[in-house]
Amino acid sequence: MATADLFQKITALTAAEGDSGHIRIYIDSNASIPDRTAAILDGGEDPVPAMTDSLRKLEACGAGCVIMPCNTAHYFLPRLVERTELPFVSMIGAAASACRARFPGKAVGILATTGTLSAGLYQEALAAQGAPFLEPGGVEREALMEVIYQGVKAGAPPSRYREAFRSVIESMAGQGAECFLLACTELPLAVRALGLDLPCVDPTEELAKAAIRFCGYSVRGE
Amino acid sequence: MATADLFQKITALTAAEGDSGHIRIYIDSNASIPDRTAAILDGGEDPVPAMTDSLRKLEACGAGCVIMPCNTAHYFLPRLVERTELPFVSMIGAAASACRARFPGKAVGILATTGTLSAGLYQEALAAQGAPFLEPGGVEREALMEVIYQGVKAGAPPSRYREAFRSVIESMAGQGAECFLLACTELPLAVRALGLDLPCVDPTEELAKAAIRFCGYSVRGE
Repeated sequence: MATADLFQKITALTAAEGDSGHIRIYIDSNASIPDRTAAILDGGEDPVPAMTDSLRKLEACGAGCVIMPCNTAHYFLPRLVERTELPFVSMIGAAASACRARFPGKAVGILATTGTLSAGLYQEALAAQGAPFLEPGGVEREALMEVIYQGVKAGAPPSRYREAFRSVIESMAGQGAECFLLACTELPLAVRALGLDLPCVDPTEELAKAAIRFCGYSVRGE
Repeated sequence: MATADLFQKITALTAAEGDSGHIRIYIDSNASIPDRTAAILDGGEDPVPAMTDSLRKLEACGAGCVIMPCNTAHYFLPRLVERTELPFVSMIGAAASACRARFPGKAVGILATTGTLSAGLYQEALAAQGAPFLEPGGVEREALMEVIYQGVKAGAPPSRYREAFRSVIESMAGQGAECFLLACTELPLAVRALGLDLPCVDPTEELAKAAIRFCGYSVRGE
């Protein structure tokens, strides 16, 4: 669903007047790629072979660059870069830049899987931008994993994860978070399904914009 | 956008409990395929070479069947079938069956591009199902093309095509249409954007369900 969301966002955000103004996009939607968080934290199956198989398919199609609508997957980016000559546009870099540009000087609450958090992906990228940030604590991490895995990924109705998500936001706002980085691709879907109006950066949207620019197209409204 | 809509519908309609229960999907989103209606009606550029190029890419990925989220493109299906060994799941067949199953004996108003209408794709399929149907007349066809091309495909706000769409529905309902076949992939998007509650069949949704079943997966709720 995160891949469909990215695809929809690229299409909506491309400044095109009709069909022919759109970027050609190849997608390999392979939900059987081993779980990235499990691989990082618990010695779960290495996802790199399956991701490399996807790279080969995108190369065969003739892709000119690669994007991955999964924040946690970016932990494996250094290994993937060695396996293809195609350039990657990084979701992490795009989202961290957007935090600084849209909420300068504000403390960013990072909402992510325990895999992404443990890998330090956004902590490093935000620190490099000089942006202050907060990480969720143990209870909040558990609540986020529930929202992501038993909620959105399981196709559960929003009522099933509303309370868990609300508790994380309130707790982190209480600790000083002034805006939120929805650093798991299921979270923008959760925010939309819950109808929340939250000061936040959506890495899927930022990746869509960065990819549009990288391909030499214009972003709608820019 | 129609391709993103189909992708989203397949994902939402697959009875999966988590990531690993989903179908692997390869997409070649090539909006530069020559306009199908123009090719059928006005001797415009033949889209079959570009469509065949897409088939080669999907074959290279290892696809097991092919679906096309464009009703008008099905006019070229007999020529495409000759160019690949991959089976196709037809959007036209799926949607015509759904009309009979969901609105038995009701007169179906066909809303489509002039290309799809002139090709007789749905008239033939509905006649084969024994379903009564109505076609839009000249004024209604023009209004539909405006909704599709200057409206949805151009990314225009719904207010720009609300009146044109409403006039078609009212006129065809006045002529006896009891339900509507949204036989252009932009039209389900228009109906959703306009927030209309219309007795209708969405071929994109029916194609999603037919493809899920063809791949041996279960449709959510069935």
